[in-house]
Amino acid sequence: MDKSTYRHEGLLKSVVTTLSQESQLQNMCHMRWQGEPLPSQAVIRRIIELCRSVLFPGFFGVEGVNSYNIEYNIGMQCEELLNLLDNQIQAGLILALCGEEYDAEQIGHRARDLAMLFIAELPELRHCLQGDVRAMYLGDPAAVSCEEVIYCYPAIKAIGNYRIAHTLLSLGVPVIPRMISEMAHAETGIDIHPGAQIGNNFAIDHGTGVVIGATAIIGDNVKIYQGVTLGAKSFDLDDDGNPIKGIPRHPIIGNNVVIYSNATILGRVRIGDGAIIGGNIWITDDVAPGEKLVQAKADNILRFKNDE
Amino acid sequence: MDKSTYRHEGLLKSVVTTLSQESQLQNMCHMRWQGEPLPSQAVIRRIIELCRSVLFPGFFGVEGVNSYNIEYNIGMQCEELLNLLDNQIQAGLILALCGEEYDAEQIGHRARDLAMLFIAELPELRHCLQGDVRAMYLGDPAAVSCEEVIYCYPAIKAIGNYRIAHTLLSLGVPVIPRMISEMAHAETGIDIHPGAQIGNNFAIDHGTGVVIGATAIIGDNVKIYQGVTLGAKSFDLDDDGNPIKGIPRHPIIGNNVVIYSNATILGRVRIGDGAIIGGNIWITDDVAPGEKLVQAKADNILRFKNDE
Amino acid sequence: MDKSTYRHEGLLKSVVTTLSQESQLQNMCHMRWQGEPLPSQAVIRRIIELCRSVLFPGFFGVEGVNSYNIEYNIGMQCEELLNLLDNQIQAGLILALCGEEYDAEQIGHRARDLAMLFIAELPELRHCLQGDVRAMYLGDPAAVSCEEVIYCYPAIKAIGNYRIAHTLLSLGVPVIPRMISEMAHAETGIDIHPGAQIGNNFAIDHGTGVVIGATAIIGDNVKIYQGVTLGAKSFDLDDDGNPIKGIPRHPIIGNNVVIYSNATILGRVRIGDGAIIGGNIWITDDVAPGEKLVQAKADNILRFKNDE
Amino acid sequence: MDKSTYRHEGLLKSVVTTLSQESQLQNMCHMRWQGEPLPSQAVIRRIIELCRSVLFPGFFGVEGVNSYNIEYNIGMQCEELLNLLDNQIQAGLILALCGEEYDAEQIGHRARDLAMLFIAELPELRHCLQGDVRAMYLGDPAAVSCEEVIYCYPAIKAIGNYRIAHTLLSLGVPVIPRMISEMAHAETGIDIHPGAQIGNNFAIDHGTGVVIGATAIIGDNVKIYQGVTLGAKSFDLDDDGNPIKGIPRHPIIGNNVVIYSNATILGRVRIGDGAIIGGNIWITDDVAPGEKLVQAKADNILRFKNDE
Amino acid sequence: MDKSTYRHEGLLKSVVTTLSQESQLQNMCHMRWQGEPLPSQAVIRRIIELCRSVLFPGFFGVEGVNSYNIEYNIGMQCEELLNLLDNQIQAGLILALCGEEYDAEQIGHRARDLAMLFIAELPELRHCLQGDVRAMYLGDPAAVSCEEVIYCYPAIKAIGNYRIAHTLLSLGVPVIPRMISEMAHAETGIDIHPGAQIGNNFAIDHGTGVVIGATAIIGDNVKIYQGVTLGAKSFDLDDDGNPIKGIPRHPIIGNNVVIYSNATILGRVRIGDGAIIGGNIWITDDVAPGEKLVQAKADNILRFKNDE
Amino acid sequence: MDKSTYRHEGLLKSVVTTLSQESQLQNMCHMRWQGEPLPSQAVIRRIIELCRSVLFPGFFGVEGVNSYNIEYNIGMQCEELLNLLDNQIQAGLILALCGEEYDAEQIGHRARDLAMLFIAELPELRHCLQGDVRAMYLGDPAAVSCEEVIYCYPAIKAIGNYRIAHTLLSLGVPVIPRMISEMAHAETGIDIHPGAQIGNNFAIDHGTGVVIGATAIIGDNVKIYQGVTLGAKSFDLDDDGNPIKGIPRHPIIGNNVVIYSNATILGRVRIGDGAIIGGNIWITDDVAPGEKLVQAKADNILRFKNDE
Repeated sequence: MDKSTYRHEGLLKSVVTTLSQESQLQNMCHMRWQGEPLPSQAVIRRIIELCRSVLFPGFFGVEGVNSYNIEYNIGMQCEELLNLLDNQIQAGLILALCGEEYDAEQIGHRARDLAMLFIAELPELRHCLQGDVRAMYLGDPAAVSCEEVIYCYPAIKAIGNYRIAHTLLSLGVPVIPRMISEMAHAETGIDIHPGAQIGNNFAIDHGTGVVIGATAIIGDNVKIYQGVTLGAKSFDLDDDGNPIKGIPRHPIIGNNVVIYSNATILGRVRIGDGAIIGGNIWITDDVAPGEKLVQAKADNILRFKNDE
Repeated sequence: MDKSTYRHEGLLKSVVTTLSQESQLQNMCHMRWQGEPLPSQAVIRRIIELCRSVLFPGFFGVEGVNSYNIEYNIGMQCEELLNLLDNQIQAGLILALCGEEYDAEQIGHRARDLAMLFIAELPELRHCLQGDVRAMYLGDPAAVSCEEVIYCYPAIKAIGNYRIAHTLLSLGVPVIPRMISEMAHAETGIDIHPGAQIGNNFAIDHGTGVVIGATAIIGDNVKIYQGVTLGAKSFDLDDDGNPIKGIPRHPIIGNNVVIYSNATILGRVRIGDGAIIGGNIWITDDVAPGEKLVQAKADNILRFKNDE
Repeated sequence: MDKSTYRHEGLLKSVVTTLSQESQLQNMCHMRWQGEPLPSQAVIRRIIELCRSVLFPGFFGVEGVNSYNIEYNIGMQCEELLNLLDNQIQAGLILALCGEEYDAEQIGHRARDLAMLFIAELPELRHCLQGDVRAMYLGDPAAVSCEEVIYCYPAIKAIGNYRIAHTLLSLGVPVIPRMISEMAHAETGIDIHPGAQIGNNFAIDHGTGVVIGATAIIGDNVKIYQGVTLGAKSFDLDDDGNPIKGIPRHPIIGNNVVIYSNATILGRVRIGDGAIIGGNIWITDDVAPGEKLVQAKADNILRFKNDE
Repeated sequence: MDKSTYRHEGLLKSVVTTLSQESQLQNMCHMRWQGEPLPSQAVIRRIIELCRSVLFPGFFGVEGVNSYNIEYNIGMQCEELLNLLDNQIQAGLILALCGEEYDAEQIGHRARDLAMLFIAELPELRHCLQGDVRAMYLGDPAAVSCEEVIYCYPAIKAIGNYRIAHTLLSLGVPVIPRMISEMAHAETGIDIHPGAQIGNNFAIDHGTGVVIGATAIIGDNVKIYQGVTLGAKSFDLDDDGNPIKGIPRHPIIGNNVVIYSNATILGRVRIGDGAIIGGNIWITDDVAPGEKLVQAKADNILRFKNDE
Repeated sequence: MDKSTYRHEGLLKSVVTTLSQESQLQNMCHMRWQGEPLPSQAVIRRIIELCRSVLFPGFFGVEGVNSYNIEYNIGMQCEELLNLLDNQIQAGLILALCGEEYDAEQIGHRARDLAMLFIAELPELRHCLQGDVRAMYLGDPAAVSCEEVIYCYPAIKAIGNYRIAHTLLSLGVPVIPRMISEMAHAETGIDIHPGAQIGNNFAIDHGTGVVIGATAIIGDNVKIYQGVTLGAKSFDLDDDGNPIKGIPRHPIIGNNVVIYSNATILGRVRIGDGAIIGGNIWITDDVAPGEKLVQAKADNILRFKNDE
Repeated sequence: MDKSTYRHEGLLKSVVTTLSQESQLQNMCHMRWQGEPLPSQAVIRRIIELCRSVLFPGFFGVEGVNSYNIEYNIGMQCEELLNLLDNQIQAGLILALCGEEYDAEQIGHRARDLAMLFIAELPELRHCLQGDVRAMYLGDPAAVSCEEVIYCYPAIKAIGNYRIAHTLLSLGVPVIPRMISEMAHAETGIDIHPGAQIGNNFAIDHGTGVVIGATAIIGDNVKIYQGVTLGAKSFDLDDDGNPIKGIPRHPIIGNNVVIYSNATILGRVRIGDGAIIGGNIWITDDVAPGEKLVQAKADNILRFKNDE
């Protein structure tokens, strides 16, 4: 029998009471009886696993795919995907209503339709990712094969999650797209907002620290390196001193652009087709098509001997 | 029967013998009979889960929180938290003694008291995180609701872990705070040392690559972006050529300061209240209150056409 | 019975058929009957766990190591390691043949020999990591003990994985080294290509965003901070407009060099012994031994008051 | 590549097709889209765990019950029990309709009400089991304490499951009671039909092979041993040669009766109060109150020396 | 540090050494390098799960079977079944060689062929079990539906495992059939040797304690109750005093026979078609067709009042 | 939002309150703060796994035992066994004190010593089980090899658990022996009280329903079949009408005795060396050495035609 336990029992009870008080819970608690279900992180994770497994059979998810079982496998997984998505989209739609009354049956049908519309996009999603894989393989001297790119490169996970999330967001699914892109963010350090519009054959190398904002537009055949930010200047505030929401505020990147590591491009600027942006540069103005910008080193660095 | 196995068996045994030799194990092995227990990464992870679940009920941990069960839930979790913390703090205290003799009963009581003191801080911790959530919601044009911030934003995890770790460190708990902040670092790419002092309504956006050093001090209503370093200049070495430990060596940031992406602020400099630090800047001197610093682009970038 | 299910059943079947078509699967599917096994991410993860457990007994993997059981523990784990590695290397060797015919028995023996050669390197690997741990402890004013470095510092995981991956690559093992380094990349945000050559007593602080390229060479006693890139300039393209593969294209870093946060060093440049590279600098030329480079701040930043 | 695989692929596909044919599936397949959900063995198992944990706190289920947490624990478990039962009863009610149309909302409310009525019976169930435990302790010379009876004796599991199943059956819940009693049957070898009516202070010793039929009635303070059957004579058949269903056909056992191992009592006979039935006896007629029956050994056994 | 640990360390080591000595291990140890693999209990358990899931879709194994997915499901499971069986049969064949040399490739092909032959029997197995289910439903007044029989009755598990095991044994698979029947024995208390030959429409009620020997032959439409033994008289011994192996030594039961609870029938006797054997009878001679035997009660029981 | 939920919330709370009342919990609740820990079913199950793995290496527990790893394996498992046993014995000793005060350190040392004494018995236990395996192999015409007996026969599990439990009981360990024998009872239907004394080369065939009482004594080379009871007559009651505890009340069986299925032997009778007891017999008197008893069939069965 542990005496010290007794000393603390009353205190413990009183902390519990405080933490359970409604006043203390303001905005910090999601109730499920008086409020409503929340999309589940674990289920969304499973949804991403299923998408990866269906889009890249044999690389992710189910092992041992072959000509005998490929249709069985994809058939089973698409059904699971449909059911989980249906259920999660329903939770997302209700969450987005912020407590307004709703018709449960109608929400149910809408969720099922949205889930099915997403499923119908899977062939197009695979086609699109095929282009990204090829671009990544061709653009990286260290890449040994497309298989290595699919299986080992974090950017494929980040771009894959982005394309899934963007498709869902375009269909009108709330909350879940953001959860999907944050999962890739945690896995890879690459943070692409699902609202961004990104063209074909998109490549990211290394990728840690990349940030692509919600209203960014990126053309075809673009390649970016680690630490690149396509952000908002975001100095404009409303009357209450808070950033104004919903305005196009991130860069528009043309086709065939390369952006090297740690470059920062801010605001609704246009980077013209074929431009090359060198590393560690900070850009808040338009760049003309075909222009190439690099940091001016000469004036920029002080050199002296260690013992000075 | 696999013949090649025999070929290797003797070699395998001899590697095992070498790897088990005391001389080979110098500093690389933690023994438990002659030495003592180590705080467990898995248990600390569970402790963080419990804290998140108790601080943000219904968002993390237990699903389906409602008015019927909220007190039961929090009651159960606080007890588990108390017991796990008690146990881990004990391991931490013994580890910090580095092999010195100790009175097990006394250590046991101290650990239990420290665990209970931490539990008693939970309501204050929740209150503090409420401010951070609100600041993050108000400061990000892309944020849809406080719920989205709590549920999706990695910075909430990083700041949450920091506030938990800082509370433990302030109570005198060794080792465990660092483990907690490294968990957030791995999850989010945000590296906040538990020793840093951070005011209310703190916001981080995107966050990958943020580094906040052990002796940094940050005021209220501060907002920082991805890749910001609040570091030490750290060129000062002792007689043996090693960095001197324990000296205040990180910046002091005032209230209402904004620091944009990839800015690097080094050394015990002061950034005055209301200052705005632009992205990709390298600062090793004080900045006056209300000052706004941005990179001088004009002289800094070479522009030429791609075919030059 | 859910009517809406019927509505979607036919559509679902047709998507499944499309996704299973051979034409749709081009490069995106890894088959196992007509093709061959793939190294398993889960098994490689277990291999890394075993390596960490054997190299740092009592810190990772098995708990409660002591003088009674250390040889039993290491003996059990080395055998599991040998068997798993054997199996994975075999998968890697076959994958690297890209569908060419092969002699299964011969591949089997080669895999077993390679696995055993790796096991034989474990004592040397531990010795080497001992140096890295000590360097990290001595070089960080915030480090409390070598134990804290081993147990809490992400860089130890990244450097450990690198040294394991580099050893395997040097032995001629394909694919798996890259998988191992990407695991550390995901865990720590530190991306070290297994092809890089890194000397003794290597230290990384914080580390998020560090990129070290495939042909980089690093001397002894080097220390680098978060966000440092040792990359390729990579503007040279072949006749098809793709980067040329296999050329030495990353920097050579001398002994006793320090490189501060977010510095970018590109191309086959030489950084001389004892050089110090300040943060946020972009370097594409050689740096002489003992030279110290820092960003020229004065001309580089525009200062104005917030209300201007 | 395994050649023998090819040989079998076609055959495998054809077996799969045969096994999937509707004609082959007659009565052997439970479909969920065109048919309806089935109560889940795994969930029912969890329901039994929860009942045991709530009825015998600290012995089963949650460990470490104490005065601080007992109400939290029971509160959490009763809610989980209510929700799981609700859901399973719904599945049971629909299954029992055998494909008839139904009003889903009405079934839902009925299931919830039944689940709640069961919860309301829990205090009475515990009271009743208290009597069984005491009877088992007092009646077994080998029993050390009531705690040992609760924790180690299989009969407590079998009688507990029976009392739970009987309560559900009495409320009108279909299918699930039988599943619950078969779980105890598998665990203990004791097969008590949930339809049986059993009085207070019921004791079973050892228990393997005990069978108590659906229409059996047992008084208070009865004790039975392993291998006892209270069965139906069941020689009466209907016009089709099948046993007639639904008729009272099992014994009525009075109060204070003891029945020793392997006794078989068949048909709607009455065993009077206080009767004692010896082992290995076969009874198909009434036994008067207070009567004691034992096998007549003398005439019943042939004795000879081994070498005869 | 626990002093008592030291006291025991040496003793522990010496017990370990003793237990590892080859002389001590005689017959009690199965080695895998110098010996060979053993069929795995866990894998055999999975094989049974798969069989049940494929034979009774929607009742066991995969949940939510429907017209969309039934072929996908059965297709996936048959492949897993084929692969696991292949592998286990190989282990069984090698084990049965008791250390003799063998041609691994030849054994591999034989195992694959045997596994495929079993798969080809699945439709017939399902057909056969359909008859057993119907017989059980028609023969039990307490049975509500065929679904209840499939889902709740332990005898279906025991008879199912028997039919699977018997099919494998008939194909010449060693060891595994016995493992499969012992699994049902543990689950249900019904012990049917895989060598027994059992006709169509076989029913067992309750079943605990049923034993059916290796050379027993049972006709069609037979029904037996709990505790029935169809055993060997087995008093005949060889010159060493051990029972002689391999001789037909268990009963032959005709068609349409019913055997009530705890009846014991021993030796190679014939029970004629349509016979009825009452409970608790001990039979070692033939019974004529149509005969009905019951225990003679009158002379067999002593009755007296409790207080005599 | 589910309205029906609200209806039940109040009722649920009130049931919870009732179930948590101290008065309701009488004897039915095991508290851990005011009371003390309970031996854990899950840990005891692990202890049995470890014993089986150590006693029959390669058959149970760890797979892939070979000459390289056998000592490592047994070394690791003996240590785990020692620690788990130590801990569980401590719990058992405290439980047996029924709330009396005790010296925790003293109990700790006694538990450790008892655990170590058990470990020291392992070689003898293995030797003893070797005899049982051989007896079972020689005595069963259906047994193919000793390996099959070890791997498939439930009786080996039951006898193994008995010998472990008996050893612990003989050392003075309370509660845990009974838990161990009940585990085998649930697994096999064989119920051997740990207090029974059983000689060498003991064999049980089939075994379901076997009961061997606490004070039974069994000689060497004894073989028993399914359904055999060695029980107490147990008609003697104390003044309160309860069975008197602690008296020798079960049979003494000599050497070389065979007891066939469903025989019941009750009370402190002696069955002489070499006796053979036929099936379905009920014995309450001594049997002379070498005697053979079988049921007298002739007078015991009524025969008539089915249509009579």
